Formats: sequence, C-alpha cells, structure tokens
Amino acid sequence: MEKRHGRQTVGFQGDVRICAYASVAGQKEKEGPLGECFDIVMPDAEWNEETWEKTESKMQKEVLKAALRKAELKSEDLHYILAGDLLNQCIGAGFGLREMEVPFLGIYGACSTMIEGLSLGAMLIDGGFAEYAAAVTSSHFCTAERQYRMPLEYGGQRTPTAQWTVTGAGAVILAKQGAGPKVTHITTGKIMDMGVKDANNMGGAMAPAAFDTLCAHFRDLGRGPADYDLILTGDLGVIGREILIEMMEKEGYDISKNYQDCGCMIYDREKVDVHAGGSGCGCVASVLCGRILEGLRQKEWKKVLVIGTGAMLSTTSSLQGESVPGIAHAAVLSAE
Amino acid sequence: MEKRHGRQTVGFQGDVRICAYASVAGQKEKEGPLGECFDIVMPDAEWNEETWEKTESKMQKEVLKAALRKAELKSEDLHYILAGDLLNQCIGAGFGLREMEVPFLGIYGACSTMIEGLSLGAMLIDGGFAEYAAAVTSSHFCTAERQYRMPLEYGGQRTPTAQWTVTGAGAVILAKQGAGPKVTHITTGKIMDMGVKDANNMGGAMAPAAFDTLCAHFRDLGRGPADYDLILTGDLGVIGREILIEMMEKEGYDISKNYQDCGCMIYDREKVDVHAGGSGCGCVASVLCGRILEGLRQKEWKKVLVIGTGAMLSTTSSLQGESVPGIAHAAVLSAE
Repeated sequence: MEKRHGRQTVGFQGDVRICAYASVAGQKEKEGPLGECFDIVMPDAEWNEETWEKTESKMQKEVLKAALRKAELKSEDLHYILAGDLLNQCIGAGFGLREMEVPFLGIYGACSTMIEGLSLGAMLIDGGFAEYAAAVTSSHFCTAERQYRMPLEYGGQRTPTAQWTVTGAGAVILAKQGAGPKVTHITTGKIMDMGVKDANNMGGAMAPAAFDTLCAHFRDLGRGPADYDLILTGDLGVIGREILIEMMEKEGYDISKNYQDCGCMIYDREKVDVHAGGSGCGCVASVLCGRILEGLRQKEWKKVLVIGTGAMLSTTSSLQGESVPGIAHAAVLSAE
Repeated sequence: MEKRHGRQTVGFQGDVRICAYASVAGQKEKEGPLGECFDIVMPDAEWNEETWEKTESKMQKEVLKAALRKAELKSEDLHYILAGDLLNQCIGAGFGLREMEVPFLGIYGACSTMIEGLSLGAMLIDGGFAEYAAAVTSSHFCTAERQYRMPLEYGGQRTPTAQWTVTGAGAVILAKQGAGPKVTHITTGKIMDMGVKDANNMGGAMAPAAFDTLCAHFRDLGRGPADYDLILTGDLGVIGREILIEMMEKEGYDISKNYQDCGCMIYDREKVDVHAGGSGCGCVASVLCGRILEGLRQKEWKKVLVIGTGAMLSTTSSLQGESVPGIAHAAVLSAE
C-alpha cells in the first residue's frame, strides 16, 4: 500500500499526465481578467440551442471535442469519461456526451466535480485500467438560476454573500505518459457539515471542507504552504476565501501569500456586479483548463495545489431546513 | 495494459473481494418473494423521520453501518465511499453519509449506480489505492414519485409499462483480500440513446444499453451466456426483460435459460399491483446485497454476471422533449 499517504492522500508512482485541456466560457467571463484565456467563447447564453439546458449539454460536448483535438486523439481512444454537473440527474453530462460512444462514469461532487473526475481519472490511469481518460464538467448561469433559485424573469434581489454561477466548462485528458502537467498526488475530501443553513452563503458553507482537506493534505504528506507556488480553491468567493485564510492561520499555516480562488479570479468585481464572486462546476473547470494548466505548461508555476469545493445541497434539502454540507477534493499538479 | 480486455472490459489481477454486504427494504418489498432475505426491513415509509428524503438518507446510513458491522470494520477503516442516488443533487447519499468521516466520491449512474460504485471501488482496490472501499445506493418509492412524477396525494393513474420504484438500499464493502465473493471483471457501459421518449417505459429505454454492454462483455472476453450460472439485470422489468432476450437472440445469444431481472424478482406481481415490476437504484442494490451475494457465498451459483441499468433522464429533459438515454454497467462475481 505504498501508494497511500496517511488517511486521505494517494501518490502516483507512474507518470500521470494531463496531455490536453480545453475551456468554454460565456460573454460575462470573457469580459473578466481571464477573458483571453478560454479556448471557446460562447456568442451568447443560448449558443444556437432552444433551451439553456441543451446549451449546457453542448458546452460539455464542445469542450471535450476541443480537448480531444488538442490531444490529437479521437473519442474512441478514451477508455473512460468521468463527467457530471449541477443539473438534476446530471443531464448536462448525460445528454452532452451521449454521442461520444465512450465508457461513461457519471460523477456528482457539486462544484468539486472537476477535481473529483481528475482524481478518479488519475487513479484509473495509474492503476493500469486506462491509457486515456477524460474528466469533464460545466455550469451555466441560466440553468443554475432556474433550477436552484428563481426564474430569471422574476428579477430577484441577491444577497451580498451570494455568488454568480459561472457559465463555463472544462475538460482534461489524462494520459499514461507523454508531455503536459503531471498529476502527482490527490487528497480526497470527506463531507463536512458545520451547520451553515444559508444557501446564499456557499463560500461560508464550503470553507470548512476546503480547510479540512487542505490540513489533511499537509498532514498526510508532511508539507506546508511553501511547498506550492500556488494554492487554488474552486469557488469559495471573496467571503469563503477570507474564512479559509483565517481558519488556516489559526491552525498555524499562512496561506495568504500564495493562495487564490477561481471564483475571485474570473470576474472583475469592480466592473460587474457578481457580489461575492464566481461559483459553479464551471468556475474551477474553466479557470483550471483556461489559465492554470497553461501556466504550468509554460513553467510560470512549478507546483500547484488545486482544491475543488462543492456544496452538497438541493432545493429540497434547503426547504426541509437542512444545513449545507461541503466537500473539497485536492490534486497536486506539477510542471515537471 | 494487460488488465484491459477489448474496448470496455477490465479484469482484476489481484484478489478483489466483497467482504460484506447489507440490504434495507420496505414493507412492500418484504411481502415479495425475497422478503426474508433483507437485513433490515423498515417499519413503514417514514422510519421515524420527518420527511421521506430524510428517511432515504437514513437508509444509506443504516445500510452502510450494517455492512460495516458484518465486516467487523469501522468507518475509519474505509479509504473511500462511492455513493449516489436518484434524488436531485444526490442528497440521499450526501446527507446520509456525512457523519461517516470517510473520503467521499459522489457518483451518478441513475439506477446503475450500485454497479458503477462497485466497478470504481474494485478498480481503486485493485489499483492499490485502497484496502477497503464501500459502494452504497438507495431509492425510496415516495421520494421518487414526488420528484419525478406526481404528489402521492394526487393518486395519478399509472400506465401499464410503468415500473414501481423499490424502497430499498444496498451496501457492499470491497476488500483487497480475504473471504467473500470475488469481483473478477467489470464492463463499463456507454450512454445509449435509441430515441425512446416515453418516460413511463424505462425498461424499453434501458434495454438497448443492457444489450450493448452485454454484447461488449461477451465480445471483450470471448464468452457467452453459458459461462454464467446467472445473468442478472437491475431493473428492466417485465417489458425490458423481454426486449433484451429478443435483442440478444437476434445477435445469436440465447440468454432465456439463465437470465433474470431484479425488477421482476422483487415483487409478487400476482399479489401487488406494480405493473411492469420494480425499478430504482435500490432495486438491484437490495436484490444484489439481500439475495445474490448470499447465494454466491453459499455456492448456490458459482459465477454471476450482474448488469446495473440506468435511465439518464430528468423531469426537465422530458419536459423539453428529450429522449431517455440509457446506461448499463456489468460486473462478474465469482463464488471462488
């Protein structure tokens, strides 16, 4: 069992590479600081589809096709696709990827889905079960609002702690060898429930999960913040990010120097009114696949710890007075 | 890559065992032919909870606890839990398993979730990433009706092709070695969409997926129906079962002698009015964990091929006129 480190972390002995990656983003995301980084920018929220749900399915299909093109692979080269999204019964992935004809493993990790897929895919590669595997996810502002909150036409007020669901998607192709950033370790998170009941404060609900996974990661590997050029969370937003910095500080870790959050990076909050920042499966997916993996490829960073963060609620659980459990999965990405 | 067989199948070189398993079932399931097989029978649909969704969460928690007791393990011995269900955002698993404090990988394969979890868990064990991993799933008639169909109070008529969602749950504990039925191969299914649009004929929608996976399994391993004492699908029901037998016959395979479907086994259709039989994540889960694994342990069968079948629809996709894609994942279970 020498692949295991401590309770939650495994290290890969073989060479697990991200041989290609691609991103899709919407117009609002294009206007942000990372606007130039995305492979495909949608012309509008519909992208020639009749419903936003069909648009989100198209995002999953097109982002995977773009990643396959960059890898110079065909879908039949993939041994597995690991994919999911926020829509009820994960229809973004199910309908979007149905024509790929690839063995399909549906996953649901809320907004941690990208890193859950990357983690599972890396284990399937390193375990000798696949030569190539893809991890795909997406979110769409309009499908998320309609499903989780209010019809867009209602024009509801947003609370200051609310975040803005990113319209975006990302796909990575994992490979047994070759070029591209390397996945060296993963730390799989437990479900953490600190009793936060405000579904409009997801950052606050997810921060304890990110904290728990980050501490487990450092503990399992005997590492600290200085071992990474960049520590990145998925979508804690402005409020969750501050909470995580404080929680880590109390634990004796200063992450303030090299820590960022995709939800804080994707929008220019001076220009657009997104309150506490971006969120959604597509937030970490589009930032990872649009900006971070390219930065690793170009050796801008040598070692990045990315932590996908998810809130495991549904409208039914909130209506029934339940709290919002969080989950966070981490992966170490290396330029070497 | 000698673990791989053909396009969709992998074989395990190590010893992957199901060291324990447990099942939960409702009153209607207790009255069926397998009524004596389940570990826990719920006193009623509520099981002392305020809402049916909380009951379903309790089912996941209790079934995993029962399996851990039988394995003489604690939750901290588990390296991973793979779990999901039919509820929006998989809240049955998320809320039910939050107190386990085990690294959690959420999965969504509709009613194929049990076999998806078993497949992934077996790969994580054989890949050297875990010593013990659990796969858990559930369904509940009342949560499924309220979410997918009509409020129960409405008393809607059911079409003759409709199936009855099983109130049941199952958990398996996978182990790197030891006693218990062995998992020798898995065949992971592709999403199959033959254009069936009737959400009240799930068996018809899922049969082509079961057909595709079964043919892939036979092709990948050079096997045929005679290599198994029992071939078992998850929840095709009476109609889907007939379709699968016919489709296989046209392909040159006679499965009529040793093929059964959990949805046909779980209820006594002479006595209770379940139309085309049982369905839901809990159908294959409770039958597998209540009856089949015990039969393997007692050498009633030597080799069983179990195929979890799922329909990847949501109420939104149906309202938008989409068809019902199906998926099917297979696993070979051996008594030796």
